[in-house]
Amino acid sequence: MNHQEALTGYIASFVAELVQSGVTDVVVSPGSRSTPIAMVMAEHPGLKLHIHVDERSAAFFALGIAKAAKRPTVLLCTSGTAAANYYPAIVEANISRVPLVVLTADRPHELRDVGAPQAIDQIHLYGKHVKWFVEMAPPESTKEMIRYARMVCARAVAAATQAPSGPVHLNFPLREPLIPNLDDDQLFRQKERVNGYVKIQQPTVSLRKDEFDSYAERIRTTKRGIIVCGQMEENGFAEAVTAFAEKYQFPILADPLSQLRSGVHNGKTIIDTYDGFLRNDLAKEALKPDLIIRFGSMPVSKALTIFMKENYEVQQLVIDGGIGWRDPALVSTEMVYCQETLFCKEMTMRMEAMPESDYFEKWKNVNSFTKNLIDTIDKAEELNEGKLFHQLAELLPEEAAIFVGNSMPIRDLDSFYHLNEKSMKVFANRGANGIDGTVSTALGVGTIHQPLYLILGDLTFFHDLNGLVAAKLQNVNITILLINNNGGGIFSFLPQASHPKHFELLFGTPLDLDFSKAVEMYGGQFTSISNWDQFSETLLQDRNKEGLRVIEIVTNRESNAAEHRKLWKFVSQEINSMLEKENA
Amino acid sequence: MNHQEALTGYIASFVAELVQSGVTDVVVSPGSRSTPIAMVMAEHPGLKLHIHVDERSAAFFALGIAKAAKRPTVLLCTSGTAAANYYPAIVEANISRVPLVVLTADRPHELRDVGAPQAIDQIHLYGKHVKWFVEMAPPESTKEMIRYARMVCARAVAAATQAPSGPVHLNFPLREPLIPNLDDDQLFRQKERVNGYVKIQQPTVSLRKDEFDSYAERIRTTKRGIIVCGQMEENGFAEAVTAFAEKYQFPILADPLSQLRSGVHNGKTIIDTYDGFLRNDLAKEALKPDLIIRFGSMPVSKALTIFMKENYEVQQLVIDGGIGWRDPALVSTEMVYCQETLFCKEMTMRMEAMPESDYFEKWKNVNSFTKNLIDTIDKAEELNEGKLFHQLAELLPEEAAIFVGNSMPIRDLDSFYHLNEKSMKVFANRGANGIDGTVSTALGVGTIHQPLYLILGDLTFFHDLNGLVAAKLQNVNITILLINNNGGGIFSFLPQASHPKHFELLFGTPLDLDFSKAVEMYGGQFTSISNWDQFSETLLQDRNKEGLRVIEIVTNRESNAAEHRKLWKFVSQEINSMLEKENA
Repeated sequence: MNHQEALTGYIASFVAELVQSGVTDVVVSPGSRSTPIAMVMAEHPGLKLHIHVDERSAAFFALGIAKAAKRPTVLLCTSGTAAANYYPAIVEANISRVPLVVLTADRPHELRDVGAPQAIDQIHLYGKHVKWFVEMAPPESTKEMIRYARMVCARAVAAATQAPSGPVHLNFPLREPLIPNLDDDQLFRQKERVNGYVKIQQPTVSLRKDEFDSYAERIRTTKRGIIVCGQMEENGFAEAVTAFAEKYQFPILADPLSQLRSGVHNGKTIIDTYDGFLRNDLAKEALKPDLIIRFGSMPVSKALTIFMKENYEVQQLVIDGGIGWRDPALVSTEMVYCQETLFCKEMTMRMEAMPESDYFEKWKNVNSFTKNLIDTIDKAEELNEGKLFHQLAELLPEEAAIFVGNSMPIRDLDSFYHLNEKSMKVFANRGANGIDGTVSTALGVGTIHQPLYLILGDLTFFHDLNGLVAAKLQNVNITILLINNNGGGIFSFLPQASHPKHFELLFGTPLDLDFSKAVEMYGGQFTSISNWDQFSETLLQDRNKEGLRVIEIVTNRESNAAEHRKLWKFVSQEINSMLEKENA
Repeated sequence: MNHQEALTGYIASFVAELVQSGVTDVVVSPGSRSTPIAMVMAEHPGLKLHIHVDERSAAFFALGIAKAAKRPTVLLCTSGTAAANYYPAIVEANISRVPLVVLTADRPHELRDVGAPQAIDQIHLYGKHVKWFVEMAPPESTKEMIRYARMVCARAVAAATQAPSGPVHLNFPLREPLIPNLDDDQLFRQKERVNGYVKIQQPTVSLRKDEFDSYAERIRTTKRGIIVCGQMEENGFAEAVTAFAEKYQFPILADPLSQLRSGVHNGKTIIDTYDGFLRNDLAKEALKPDLIIRFGSMPVSKALTIFMKENYEVQQLVIDGGIGWRDPALVSTEMVYCQETLFCKEMTMRMEAMPESDYFEKWKNVNSFTKNLIDTIDKAEELNEGKLFHQLAELLPEEAAIFVGNSMPIRDLDSFYHLNEKSMKVFANRGANGIDGTVSTALGVGTIHQPLYLILGDLTFFHDLNGLVAAKLQNVNITILLINNNGGGIFSFLPQASHPKHFELLFGTPLDLDFSKAVEMYGGQFTSISNWDQFSETLLQDRNKEGLRVIEIVTNRESNAAEHRKLWKFVSQEINSMLEKENA
């Protein structure tokens, strides 16, 4: 068998198995060494190829697709630093449990560590940040090696998918000449079992029946239980957890990424303004729990984290189908490794009566009281970061996907985006919480969910400006709400804000960029908003329009921090009055 | 001692030692966890801080400074994916032997692997791509721990500098509150030895006297010796190697990055058109060597590589002061670990007479014959990538620094940029040869060398567009010659060019971007050239102007490849005629 046949058979078998394992999307960056894999992939009718020149953005784009589609997305790049550019997105995927299959082409063994061009040490390139690494055998098309290629492929997809999902990395040593033979009619059919090479049956992470019984018994006998939900993506979870909460009359403190603040599920148990009222000591005292059941990753709210820390002596259960350790506050008393939706259902079916609960009523009262107070932000006439998030639920269309940037936007979303009956989904990169790759991840989500709204600050936008090229080249429609406060707004909330000497240099970091130019370059439409009427009009007008649209909202870092402080002070004072009256 | 005192004393001692170890430049990316280090650095009068929001560009910017200044540059960022963005530049620095000291802030131990925000596993984050990694002890200001901080700092700088230079990584676990006490007058003077904590005397990589004697004897008795010089940055090397070559009458095949094609050193021995004539079989036969002595990294020219491979049976010495293995062609017969300049000097002083050499004359004749043939490219009326590089030596000012992009530009520079007596320096990222980070690395070089010219293709420009922000914020003057052939020009020279089916999708990858918008956003001036007169006029007019200037030269990928082929065919035919005449 000649070199080209060996290369083609091996790669084609691998690619065929990818498709049979459920992969549909591949994000490819151009390069020479990856030529045979790229050409064979382009030939497969079952794969959609997205081409992205900047590998950093490419990897975040793939992360977005995988996050939204909940299936592994494949990355392919050439050898060298190209592969190192994937690192930030791989780290994020690993922590946020998003399945990626990363394929890197490499120089063959004789060109490694000898000063050859584009040859870097790619063995374990991503260290502990991938779930599985395989240095592939050099291409051969013996029966044995075809089985090998298919087996590794099937396992790689399964490993990426298995809870907790995450990235895997396969490194392909490829020797010149690199052109495969695409003229073979049987390219993807040779040496193949009819229904794919191997099926991998994943395990269910669950408990024994007697263990479920025991948890149900303990939870049933609790008077002051609360449920805390952080980021959760599981299908059916919203219905399951709200049914569980209603049966036991537990309030659900629902993070914006829990997907519980929007949708047609029962909203009666949802508490959505805790980030406001848990800053108040009287409220915290009145609402002291004796059991906390937590699902998903740690919520965004710092007030809630402090509340959980202050109640470190009560039972705190973390239910985790990903068998991780999601407890940065070091307060959990029990790690319960069980699929979250399954756990809720098992609890719900073990509860018969629906008890009355004063404690639950208290949560609901404080919550609706706080919501009315926060609603006053709508009166603000100046452009204001809080009000922007408060208006989203009303202004965005049914079934919008909202992607929100880290740093301040996710916190403002938490504070100001409340329960609504639209079916909006909220996404963010909350594994490592970086400001990198946000535009690209959002655009990846946009290939699956439309209409797509991305809300982010100017530094986050700048960090991944290159990502915008996907809006143009991959034809992804997106509306970006760019909160431009010319620098790092979050630092105005941190202690360094009171040390002015190096503040603007090190933390404020104004870029003074007119982003309309970049948006024009990528063929987008740019509107800078000067008042609230224009904001809502522009959002409404832009609905159903195609392409890239950026709506800039210029704000001021200092006054923004001052207004936030003023609002929370007002909310706290009013809650004090209310609770003091009640206690009197 | 309270937390703030412990933090401040530890960090200030570390920073003081950095300065005493010779560090002058720090590239800082804004973040919260790195606050104490950033604030203390900003306070030190001996450090120049460069602020860069995008860590990927920041790291390449630091690489450029270190490359040009030949001293370690420090990087500082916050925890999380920020640090992962450094990876491409770190990989490049490691292979291209550029000293970097990478400081990453990290969450303290109790916030690791528990789902805390911006907490990723930073232990050995860069794997085998750094020379040294230290997980720093948590801040303490006991005498012992101050000595520890200073010792690690001194060793880190020494390790980065020691041949082969490269990156080192120190990871700092930092606990809140993060604000240091800057009010202390003795901030950088406490507990300090007068002349710094410890001096580290580096070794000289050299040979014994009898070993030098033996090499000199062998080289002296060689009739057909050649010297090959790849990328070399050592001060004094140009003088030393040309003196060596002249004494022994050996031709020097000088790569553009050898720094031998430009300068006031003796140019008599320099062969600069070998990439043209070593494509010709008769020339290769006529110039067959019996000894090849190589310095620096592997040269760019593929023709030269093939020539060395075809002569695999002759003695091939690689002289390497960095104790590496620079031999991708697997042809070396001897690895000689000795500082290159020192080796040349030792050889020169051991040679008394200057022999006559027909062989050397042959090289010079073929070289000047070829040069005349290549000079005909100046007649081209259409904009043409080859001619552009051919004109650089004439059009750029004395002492210009030229930074050249990878892929086609570096190859065209090799083919068309010939010996001149200006004192121009040529830089490129030739460790891993990536197209990433090029704008930023060039701008880093520009903080040391002016005037700065960057020549690169449109995909390379796009990959690091964010890097342009440094031209604006750090006030670095730069003239960019943007060769815009709307895609990946090099692929038109590769075998896939004859497989049109997926070619434009996978390899051509046109972006169709109007880069003038991005340049405007960064406050630059953009000129698109339509003819050669305008090109030279613009270059001359722009001399001594400040700021960012981009000169776009629009070319066509297909016709460019065709013209290159035509030229090399013409050159080869003429050389055939010439050599056949000589042999007749």
